[in-house]
Amino acid sequence: MGTLTSRTNAPHAPNLPKQDRSRATRRHLLEAAVACLAEHGWAGSTVAVVAERAGVSRGAAQHHFPTREDLFTAAVEHVAEERSAALRGLLSATRPVVGPARTYAVVEGIADLCTGPLFRAALQLWVAAANEEPLRSRVVDLEVRVGREVHRMAVELLGADESVPGVRETVQGFLDMARGLGLANLLTDDSARRERVVAHWAALLDDVLRPRGRG
Amino acid sequence: MGTLTSRTNAPHAPNLPKQDRSRATRRHLLEAAVACLAEHGWAGSTVAVVAERAGVSRGAAQHHFPTREDLFTAAVEHVAEERSAALRGLLSATRPVVGPARTYAVVEGIADLCTGPLFRAALQLWVAAANEEPLRSRVVDLEVRVGREVHRMAVELLGADESVPGVRETVQGFLDMARGLGLANLLTDDSARRERVVAHWAALLDDVLRPRGRG
Repeated sequence: MGTLTSRTNAPHAPNLPKQDRSRATRRHLLEAAVACLAEHGWAGSTVAVVAERAGVSRGAAQHHFPTREDLFTAAVEHVAEERSAALRGLLSATRPVVGPARTYAVVEGIADLCTGPLFRAALQLWVAAANEEPLRSRVVDLEVRVGREVHRMAVELLGADESVPGVRETVQGFLDMARGLGLANLLTDDSARRERVVAHWAALLDDVLRPRGRG
Repeated sequence: MGTLTSRTNAPHAPNLPKQDRSRATRRHLLEAAVACLAEHGWAGSTVAVVAERAGVSRGAAQHHFPTREDLFTAAVEHVAEERSAALRGLLSATRPVVGPARTYAVVEGIADLCTGPLFRAALQLWVAAANEEPLRSRVVDLEVRVGREVHRMAVELLGADESVPGVRETVQGFLDMARGLGLANLLTDDSARRERVVAHWAALLDDVLRPRGRG
């Protein structure tokens, strides 16, 4: 899924049209903001620190993102969209389309998404927002959008039929579990335990979502 | 389960033996520390703020807890033990001892534990620890102890037989889910959605843990 720190240096490509350069600068700022949040937390994350990390002048950074809240909420949303799209793309190209192996790949992919730098960054932002306005209301809006998008992605990738009673709650509970796995990986490497939980719960989930196929 | 802010005023009961007064002061400090962390986060939580909240002199607070790390890690551990014991006591007195209604009560009780002030406080401490030594190593130790205790409690209350392959991972995944539900409740009241997820997953969990009893 690529590392968050890749390509955070601003492109000095004078042959690019101005609009493309501006878009590239914006993208570098967003990626640098997520990496910064994940590494240093909200207290250590300012527009100036991110601008320096991205190799962009502070003025240019402020042109794109007038406030600290603008920069970091946009960053988490942008990177969440990008990573979701990457996972969707990766798994859409993968066979089989349904069945236990497919469910395992989806559960593993979503658990990975919840244990990487993006989740760490989001967690820092969420927890800071609990005690701080105006960040709080911005993050509440963001949570609704990102939550919906991740749910939609999970339903699609799992091939889940939400018209069946209970399927919606099955998927929601699984996503809560994935976030809990992310939390458990915050301070220590939880990958060995997580692997066992993921393998076991992928099988449970596959049974629940497709009970007829497995008896 | 009681509120975290109850009884945070120090007892001015001169008839109590000195040792009892000291123990009571300590308990008030621990309860106040958790309430403070939950409300103000790590940045807003100091020994002085907690001492004032508990109605204890700063000197007395520092006598019990020489450092900020001492106070807040001890607080989360103490309150976690107290709340676990309360849940255990509540559910041990409840019939039926097994079956779907029992599983529902346990799942609901643990989900409640993960959405109250204790979980909020723990979350603030965990996330602060990700970017700060010496807090980090203290919280890593704490995580091991609290994690083990909560797992043991869940196994006991669910009547789960961990000698059966997969049961350990079933319980672990459920606890990850409970923590994810706690995260989802951080900024907004998620209780309506959570109720549906809890009801649905309690039934699934009961099926998985006792497949023979339900066919």
